Amino acid sequence: MISRIAMIGTGLLGTSVGLALRAAGFRGSIVGWNRSPDQAQVALKMGAIDSVAGDPIEAARDAQITLLAVPIYATLDFMEKLAGQLGCEHLVTDVGSTKRLISEAAARLYNTPERAAFLPGHPMAGKERGGAALADANLFRGAVWLFTDDPDAQRSPHGAELVKGWREWVAAMGAKALDLDPVRHDELVAWVSHLPQFTATALSALLEEEVGGAPELKDVGGRALREMTRLGASPYSMWRDIAYTNTEAVERALTALEQRLAHLRENLRTPGLRDEFEQANRFRRE
Amino acid sequence: MISRIAMIGTGLLGTSVGLALRAAGFRGSIVGWNRSPDQAQVALKMGAIDSVAGDPIEAARDAQITLLAVPIYATLDFMEKLAGQLGCEHLVTDVGSTKRLISEAAARLYNTPERAAFLPGHPMAGKERGGAALADANLFRGAVWLFTDDPDAQRSPHGAELVKGWREWVAAMGAKALDLDPVRHDELVAWVSHLPQFTATALSALLEEEVGGAPELKDVGGRALREMTRLGASPYSMWRDIAYTNTEAVERALTALEQRLAHLRENLRTPGLRDEFEQANRFRRE
Repeated sequence: MISRIAMIGTGLLGTSVGLALRAAGFRGSIVGWNRSPDQAQVALKMGAIDSVAGDPIEAARDAQITLLAVPIYATLDFMEKLAGQLGCEHLVTDVGSTKRLISEAAARLYNTPERAAFLPGHPMAGKERGGAALADANLFRGAVWLFTDDPDAQRSPHGAELVKGWREWVAAMGAKALDLDPVRHDELVAWVSHLPQFTATALSALLEEEVGGAPELKDVGGRALREMTRLGASPYSMWRDIAYTNTEAVERALTALEQRLAHLRENLRTPGLRDEFEQANRFRRE
Repeated sequence: MISRIAMIGTGLLGTSVGLALRAAGFRGSIVGWNRSPDQAQVALKMGAIDSVAGDPIEAARDAQITLLAVPIYATLDFMEKLAGQLGCEHLVTDVGSTKRLISEAAARLYNTPERAAFLPGHPMAGKERGGAALADANLFRGAVWLFTDDPDAQRSPHGAELVKGWREWVAAMGAKALDLDPVRHDELVAWVSHLPQFTATALSALLEEEVGGAPELKDVGGRALREMTRLGASPYSMWRDIAYTNTEAVERALTALEQRLAHLRENLRTPGLRDEFEQANRFRRE
């Protein structure tokens, strides 16, 4: 049923979705647009999109489904622009890493019988470096794809069908759908995604200060150090909007980790250290 | 020249050394002893040792080189016991994760022309779970093997030869030797090894409290979460002696990370966040 997709943003995630759709057997058209046209050309050469759009709004108007694969504030901007241009025969969905503001905008601007449908989505997959050239048809295989859909959305039958169809393609890309309330989503990803990222950033920045001048010393740490600092390569541009749109939950998570580290530090020579290790072991128990 | 090795401790590291020596072409005898005899039997079945010793001291007396592959305090105990039993035709070496106390004991008990030689060593390789069954002949391939030898050691010619011979086998196992002062060693590994471990432990313990009750939520974090908490599986028994024998350096490193996390938390919406990401990016620059 779905034969025309517009992809706004052909970075790592958008381009990977295009490749994954093709690998899963999607035979319709995928029109791509990117703010930097060279990234759209890379996506085109990789076969993730069939053509490059000159204008993103026009591309969305011509498609059934528009995938917004841009940073969060850009997603919110496009949601505003597209709401007035698309009717009840359209679905817009996204891949943004925080969902409260996007779900609020969806309730305000979409999801009535006359308007376009909007399905807030968030695939838990990525890499520490962005860009179309690193895209991977298998990026979503085995990953969780979170949705924070509104159970009270009043969609046209056509919009409801497109939502169902997109969920089927997400499953076909190898992802496992999980539905969450948007506020709960943002709290949860603060713990399991944002906290690990900001911890790796702080640890990497600290180690750059302490041993960065002696490259041979980085080798000393081996695999453990490489893993614990891999996300230190993540660019600010990918995380700025996340920090801005989930500030309070991230602050709570960081404060909790600071306290946990202080507790461990104060117990390096007490049985409290054993308790911390045993609690950590439980998290990793298979 | 080296044809008789005694291995005291046949856990993950000792057993891996045995396998790596065999893979590198060592054709002499390797006698193993372990406090829990079942671990010695596993090492024997894997081919890491040729025979199981009933008494570790006797095994050391019959060998040219004794490798201590036991926790740090057990290493210090064996150093005391062996010093009175071994003469200048012996070398004792170890794999302990902190080196200040071990190097001090080596200077006090070994390394005169009449006494056995001692070479303090520390391969930067391991796994988050211990035990002979997980041993790997390639564990040291590409890893750094730190030595904190005393440049003023007054060894017998025979002891000096054995030190040279052991360093050659370390290279043959695929490791890269790096020589450091023992105090500098302990400071360095506090940053590049102990801090990453204790951070992973604190993060895992915290996440167990926050989301441990809902196993499906661990999947949400994906690869990033798995990597940042893999070391959370490390057992207390492997880290207790490290925490005890490098307390001050680890306290300094943990305090610095707590401050860094607080700084990042206070700058989630300021240009300071960009600076942290850029500093972290520098650490991961190839």
